[in-house]
Amino acid sequence: MTYRTLHAGRSDNPRKLTVEPPDGHSVSYAMLGRDGSRDIVAIKTSYKHGLDKGRAEQHYYTALTLYDDLTGLPVAMMDCSRIGSLRTPAVSALLARECAAPGARSALVVGTGTQGRLALPFLLTTLPELDRLMLFGTHPEGLAAVRAHLHAHAPGRELEIVTDLRAAAAEADVVVATAGAHTPAAVEADWLGPGALSVLVGHGLAPSTLHRADRVIATSAAQMQVTGTDMADAAGELRSVDAEFAPVLAGVVPGRGSDTERVFAYNSGLVVTDIALGHRFAQLALAQGLGTEVPLWR
Amino acid sequence: MTYRTLHAGRSDNPRKLTVEPPDGHSVSYAMLGRDGSRDIVAIKTSYKHGLDKGRAEQHYYTALTLYDDLTGLPVAMMDCSRIGSLRTPAVSALLARECAAPGARSALVVGTGTQGRLALPFLLTTLPELDRLMLFGTHPEGLAAVRAHLHAHAPGRELEIVTDLRAAAAEADVVVATAGAHTPAAVEADWLGPGALSVLVGHGLAPSTLHRADRVIATSAAQMQVTGTDMADAAGELRSVDAEFAPVLAGVVPGRGSDTERVFAYNSGLVVTDIALGHRFAQLALAQGLGTEVPLWR
Repeated sequence: MTYRTLHAGRSDNPRKLTVEPPDGHSVSYAMLGRDGSRDIVAIKTSYKHGLDKGRAEQHYYTALTLYDDLTGLPVAMMDCSRIGSLRTPAVSALLARECAAPGARSALVVGTGTQGRLALPFLLTTLPELDRLMLFGTHPEGLAAVRAHLHAHAPGRELEIVTDLRAAAAEADVVVATAGAHTPAAVEADWLGPGALSVLVGHGLAPSTLHRADRVIATSAAQMQVTGTDMADAAGELRSVDAEFAPVLAGVVPGRGSDTERVFAYNSGLVVTDIALGHRFAQLALAQGLGTEVPLWR
Repeated sequence: MTYRTLHAGRSDNPRKLTVEPPDGHSVSYAMLGRDGSRDIVAIKTSYKHGLDKGRAEQHYYTALTLYDDLTGLPVAMMDCSRIGSLRTPAVSALLARECAAPGARSALVVGTGTQGRLALPFLLTTLPELDRLMLFGTHPEGLAAVRAHLHAHAPGRELEIVTDLRAAAAEADVVVATAGAHTPAAVEADWLGPGALSVLVGHGLAPSTLHRADRVIATSAAQMQVTGTDMADAAGELRSVDAEFAPVLAGVVPGRGSDTERVFAYNSGLVVTDIALGHRFAQLALAQGLGTEVPLWR
């Protein structure tokens, strides 16, 4: 719905603002968007501090402020971290629904962080016929967490921990790469079988999967140019995008051209998806009387 | 201080994001900045609704969120409307200190809204030798409010309400134009005397004051290109800026070249000035135990 409205030109999702001090110890973002179907304007901000330190010493704050653009009144300000962690796998699942080959049965998730843990539960909502669920990861506690999440959301489904990434990739109809920047995993294009869909959320795919794909889809071509530079080829070039996901989801452009095409999909977050999910959460929270009313404006 | 740090390249003040629906009934902005002397990162947001309605039916919300970039912790989120209304006349007063002719004694304020009411009290802090304080306005309650503000801040100072704008402009060493977009006031360049400084905050100066000035200063040349389009000449062109205010305040560039130059100064708000004032207010408020602690991030 969010993507369809964006495609219809009734939403706005301008590029984000970024501020970093010269020493790079922190980074801040501000994003502004408008959802033309919900009539919601929202600002998403994030501030990350301690990039020069270990993960335990880092601080990360992200907030979403929603205004009702019909009444002109503020709706809520909310922590955006959970929203951000949920909207990305939801979009990966939609990408899989639109771009996976018909009859896809096997999925491989690379990475066991927040995104790795949520990938399979969401994938199963759009592709319930998946019957082989593979996971590649290097952190034992992460592997256990992915299994726990899967069993909580889909009791009875089996998780297959793989160690031969190449063999697993060859057998996967859908690969979702969610690993961190330091992952040893790098699935190559020629490991993939015919018809494979590879979705890049974090890391775990080699640039060849982009450059040798039969079709490239991105949630935002402009954002991919900014944040996807690690996928550049030897000449420093990024392959251009065949279609953005909004027209694919709107049914205007096909997600794939044939059953055997290898499709590469780049999933970077759009603030309009934060708005959609954040507004739903805010409605539920307000209905339950959650939150604190703050006298910010008098 | 804020401008000096900006000039020294230790602060960041990127362009703002804007979102408007196609029918223009609302407008939203997001600004992100970093103050390199205070080590504060801040996001300023504003949302205005009801632009198609009368002022009484409009909604306007603006908020400033501050992060301490040394500790990485949030400082406060605060209403930014009062901050925004104070930082602008403070900058006008600094512009007057740096760019008015030596021995300036007379000031003319055009407009009686929020900015008109604060203009003279601030001007008197940087130019206490001003002894002729003129005001042009069209709203009786606005004229009374300007007088009340002046007397509250500078008891004993007289305010001269002028009706002949041209004659008043000819006698003013400093003109500060703060009127609303629908003002009938439009001071022309050839009304001004030698050495006059004209500062544009809102409306009230004709484009000739910019185009025929001997020197043009702007708080931000880039912002002036975006927000100053009503000052374009008949060909739609804006005269380029001779200097930004940051190097003037830093003492690197002179505010004027001679006692008789006519200087035009464009005062548009920079988020770094919101940060400076907002941080000071937040420190004072926290010291007094004001505000509400909200469990936004857990």
